[in-house]
Amino acid sequence: MNVAIIGASGYTGLELIKILINHPTFNISYIANSTGNENVQELHPCLKDVLDVEVSKADAKDVAKVAQLAFLALPHKTSMSFAKELLELGVKVVDLSADYRLELETYEKHYCPHEDKEHIQDSVYGLPEYYKNEIKDSKLIANPGCYPTASLLALLPFIDYIDTDAQIFIDAKSGMSGAGKGLKEVTHFGNLNENCHSYSPFNHRHMPEIEEKVRLIKGAKCQINFVPHLLPVTRGMLVSVFATLKEEIDAKKVLEEAYKDSSFVRIRNNPVDLKSTAGTNFCDIFVETNGKALFINSSIDNLLRGASSQAVVNANIMCGLEEDEGIPKIAYVP
Amino acid sequence: MNVAIIGASGYTGLELIKILINHPTFNISYIANSTGNENVQELHPCLKDVLDVEVSKADAKDVAKVAQLAFLALPHKTSMSFAKELLELGVKVVDLSADYRLELETYEKHYCPHEDKEHIQDSVYGLPEYYKNEIKDSKLIANPGCYPTASLLALLPFIDYIDTDAQIFIDAKSGMSGAGKGLKEVTHFGNLNENCHSYSPFNHRHMPEIEEKVRLIKGAKCQINFVPHLLPVTRGMLVSVFATLKEEIDAKKVLEEAYKDSSFVRIRNNPVDLKSTAGTNFCDIFVETNGKALFINSSIDNLLRGASSQAVVNANIMCGLEEDEGIPKIAYVP
Amino acid sequence: MNVAIIGASGYTGLELIKILINHPTFNISYIANSTGNENVQELHPCLKDVLDVEVSKADAKDVAKVAQLAFLALPHKTSMSFAKELLELGVKVVDLSADYRLELETYEKHYCPHEDKEHIQDSVYGLPEYYKNEIKDSKLIANPGCYPTASLLALLPFIDYIDTDAQIFIDAKSGMSGAGKGLKEVTHFGNLNENCHSYSPFNHRHMPEIEEKVRLIKGAKCQINFVPHLLPVTRGMLVSVFATLKEEIDAKKVLEEAYKDSSFVRIRNNPVDLKSTAGTNFCDIFVETNGKALFINSSIDNLLRGASSQAVVNANIMCGLEEDEGIPKIAYVP
Amino acid sequence: MNVAIIGASGYTGLELIKILINHPTFNISYIANSTGNENVQELHPCLKDVLDVEVSKADAKDVAKVAQLAFLALPHKTSMSFAKELLELGVKVVDLSADYRLELETYEKHYCPHEDKEHIQDSVYGLPEYYKNEIKDSKLIANPGCYPTASLLALLPFIDYIDTDAQIFIDAKSGMSGAGKGLKEVTHFGNLNENCHSYSPFNHRHMPEIEEKVRLIKGAKCQINFVPHLLPVTRGMLVSVFATLKEEIDAKKVLEEAYKDSSFVRIRNNPVDLKSTAGTNFCDIFVETNGKALFINSSIDNLLRGASSQAVVNANIMCGLEEDEGIPKIAYVP
Repeated sequence: MNVAIIGASGYTGLELIKILINHPTFNISYIANSTGNENVQELHPCLKDVLDVEVSKADAKDVAKVAQLAFLALPHKTSMSFAKELLELGVKVVDLSADYRLELETYEKHYCPHEDKEHIQDSVYGLPEYYKNEIKDSKLIANPGCYPTASLLALLPFIDYIDTDAQIFIDAKSGMSGAGKGLKEVTHFGNLNENCHSYSPFNHRHMPEIEEKVRLIKGAKCQINFVPHLLPVTRGMLVSVFATLKEEIDAKKVLEEAYKDSSFVRIRNNPVDLKSTAGTNFCDIFVETNGKALFINSSIDNLLRGASSQAVVNANIMCGLEEDEGIPKIAYVP
Repeated sequence: MNVAIIGASGYTGLELIKILINHPTFNISYIANSTGNENVQELHPCLKDVLDVEVSKADAKDVAKVAQLAFLALPHKTSMSFAKELLELGVKVVDLSADYRLELETYEKHYCPHEDKEHIQDSVYGLPEYYKNEIKDSKLIANPGCYPTASLLALLPFIDYIDTDAQIFIDAKSGMSGAGKGLKEVTHFGNLNENCHSYSPFNHRHMPEIEEKVRLIKGAKCQINFVPHLLPVTRGMLVSVFATLKEEIDAKKVLEEAYKDSSFVRIRNNPVDLKSTAGTNFCDIFVETNGKALFINSSIDNLLRGASSQAVVNANIMCGLEEDEGIPKIAYVP
Repeated sequence: MNVAIIGASGYTGLELIKILINHPTFNISYIANSTGNENVQELHPCLKDVLDVEVSKADAKDVAKVAQLAFLALPHKTSMSFAKELLELGVKVVDLSADYRLELETYEKHYCPHEDKEHIQDSVYGLPEYYKNEIKDSKLIANPGCYPTASLLALLPFIDYIDTDAQIFIDAKSGMSGAGKGLKEVTHFGNLNENCHSYSPFNHRHMPEIEEKVRLIKGAKCQINFVPHLLPVTRGMLVSVFATLKEEIDAKKVLEEAYKDSSFVRIRNNPVDLKSTAGTNFCDIFVETNGKALFINSSIDNLLRGASSQAVVNANIMCGLEEDEGIPKIAYVP
Repeated sequence: MNVAIIGASGYTGLELIKILINHPTFNISYIANSTGNENVQELHPCLKDVLDVEVSKADAKDVAKVAQLAFLALPHKTSMSFAKELLELGVKVVDLSADYRLELETYEKHYCPHEDKEHIQDSVYGLPEYYKNEIKDSKLIANPGCYPTASLLALLPFIDYIDTDAQIFIDAKSGMSGAGKGLKEVTHFGNLNENCHSYSPFNHRHMPEIEEKVRLIKGAKCQINFVPHLLPVTRGMLVSVFATLKEEIDAKKVLEEAYKDSSFVRIRNNPVDLKSTAGTNFCDIFVETNGKALFINSSIDNLLRGASSQAVVNANIMCGLEEDEGIPKIAYVP
């Protein structure tokens, strides 16, 4: 089955290419970025002698001719206009941007006016552990943000046991690849190396995404106080969710029950780390309590489970394949 | 004035040496470790052509002959028996171990039976912002732990405004030097590089130290839920304190008021980072609120403000010097 | 076809497991280390939910019952006695240690007395670009050292053009995984982070390995002056070969000619880096001249091309498979 | 004595500020960059509560009013026009750029047309071990490049023993701060972290600087084949000089003799590393031979000995102070 990758220049675009090269069913028939006219090996020198394809300037009609499904690794706002075209041409879309992740009102409050009000209401939030059936029948998947993926997988199983009137705090730490490939002060080696700091505390766009999904999935209204940090590593994400229990529980049992059928969530007996999930689609989770105080600790690869490999899992489910087909479970990471 | 450094082999011992070499009043007259019989340049090659002193095998009577004050950078338990001897010989002590930091009962619950019950009751907790007057008259300073230093400086100004019935969470991140110079799995480069993880969540010995000091300094009983992490950096410490306010406040104003006379606490307008305090005795603090949710964010150098430079500040105060005499405020850090 | 991995605890053992899990033809039927009695998931937590196999205490007869080929990732000296047993039981061996890499005399000079003089003379040096035909017919492959792999692939094409009376210098830089998983001062995070240094200059055991292979493959006697360094990264190896040309040449052309049929050597137009080969079996090479001065610059993943993936390439060739079957060409590296 | 710092925004400007804040004789009376109109604490947040000075827009006449000596940490070309003005106004200059380092002809070949032909001929190359007397009487010091400093201190003592007809190779490795504070692909964290590569092999501007100084200081003409690398660390520089001896020598003795009176060169018994010199003005050197093959290994802090602290040493000597007055010899580095 032929698939297209639109937005091949950035980190998530490259990860999509890597996964799809080795995918047993999907075949990359089209790769595009904003300029085109370049071999993919010039764009990504690590692909020399691995993949020999011309990168096109993105064009929806061309995509529709050669692919049944497209992965969009585009910036917010750019994505929705391209997705709209593709959907009207009958191409299935897995969108890695934020454009279809939120309810219209939430989106417009935190991002910008929406330009595809028709399709946003039909999009499915691509967190397979909670939306697998909806994904099967969908033509448009909104791939979750990296922080929401790690935070929701940790938090959702406990919502029923948590005192949602008490504050919920999330202290999240991300490798720098989450900040993208573009040159920025914050990701200059001289600034990040041997350093660590939070950014946008209580004011990050992934905060309303987490709050909304908790409400939609669990029917619970709660205040999520989210503080992201940048770690001096390239990839990986570690999340601490802190909450207050209504009463003491056997927290590990709750977790095991929640994910007993999941292919990609692993319950750990010890605090999780970046290394065990780096290069894979796994989300590792550990939980600890101190009386009614609750600490849920999750780890994902921000570029894979937090973006590209989760996107391919969603595509697998949309296309009736096994969800783990071609999905990385081990990696040659440092 | 002559001073001794006992326990010169570890990280904090070396930092003490570096500070005291350049100190205008204190003169290093004695350096010891557990083996002795070695030049300090062999122990620490960075001191070649800088300091040329024999390292002795630690002996309290020898110390008393040549120094009026001793810094003990010894392991817990070893420290108290050596401190006891020194105090009986009339030598002032700044102890960097945990042996005199806690009330007797708390100590014995979390560490081991105490062997110097006489002096533990007279020791002063060396957090200068809160105990300066007591330090002036003391002969025995218990230098605070690194995590408690960063956590208490962040938390204490807000205790009166916090709902202490609600859970207080601390997500703390430390450079690996806090784990010491000895070879351990956790600080093997292959394990820590490109990694990050928590350890002893809700179960670290610095948790009761923080709880006790909040009670003693502010008269408040509260549950501190403390989760430390290891960062893939050598030095530095970043602390997130999360708490619930009784009502909304102007948090920055509270902070500025609390530290308006402090030489070594800097209030920041943006989230703090490791780099700004690395190599110095500063504690940088930033605060943010989200309604009643409170985030206090502090940064220190775990080996300096969290150990050796704070020890020298305490010695300065004990000896009637300016508290910032010879204390590093800038550093040639990466 | 069933294969065994002996020595599963170290870095190269884990990499062998990862490659073979995904290998289309080889099937892991036996995994052993020196203690046994443990699930492979306890030994390597990243394998949870990926591979569920008991690790045995290594026993040659047990191997012979369940596998036709064994990979030995054992320490020098331990390896030869185990290999001997296996070979006598009819099991093919790919040995990742140094035990069969050298001629007997060279080995005994630089390592220790040899305990398997029978098989050492029949072993084939597993550098596929130069020994492919011999590998096909061999029952015992001596997998090359990491430094010799990167150095020889760079140097060999130029030997005919080099003035071998002039000194040849190699400045090699390796990620710390080459120093192994065991706890050592040199790989303590506090020592290696933000650091870099050479070790064993002109005195490393890979120096005679390079000299011997240059002589055997190219019939040239020359003095190789080898200086290895440790880099503050986990994986990767970068080699600078410096030599003096007899006369000026088109060096890139020589390189392209030498490797025109190679699946795993890529000639680069710019200086090579660690990232482009990390996680793969590729060796990237760049060359530059300054009159008669020659700089050849190669990069490999020290654990893969320098050990485990090259071992599987050798096994592929021994077993009549395509040499790149199941061999990693792209990676989810930072 | 009042001094000015022109070019305060970059890495070397900040290091100058740090050194001069603690200098016992020099007093910073003027700090400038290209924009001015900012407190130095906004430019460098680490200086909060340490130095409270307005940064001016650089103006030579203003400098002449308030300072007798100026340190120029400006880009090449910008520096010479500003230096010219200052010299004409009677202000002594220590120039950290390349503008006065080379003979006119060499400069114009490798940089650009020179705009201050009057003063370039009177400038002194500020390598104190070889030009101390000339520095004493000079009004214009050309502070050496970082690579030439480390390379020349290693190479010069051996020139008389080296076969200068044979090729000399230098494999140099620098922390990224040498590439400056500006945003560049090469110093994006995602590109440099876990990476290492050479750049401009045999084609770096420091190559003619080294060749010229060898000729001027030792009267020897030789081809220096220089290959610089970028290391994934912030500061530090490690140099390997490879050469061929005319005959075997006691190399360590040569080194000890050469630097027996030097305050800032330390001869080491083991290969040097970045950590021992980071944060200081020391140059550590180690030497090893293999018959006639020679390996000289030096380490400096690229921002200090390679720029700012060497500049202050030069200013000390120019002003009749002890050369080590106020110069860092120990550091709170990781």
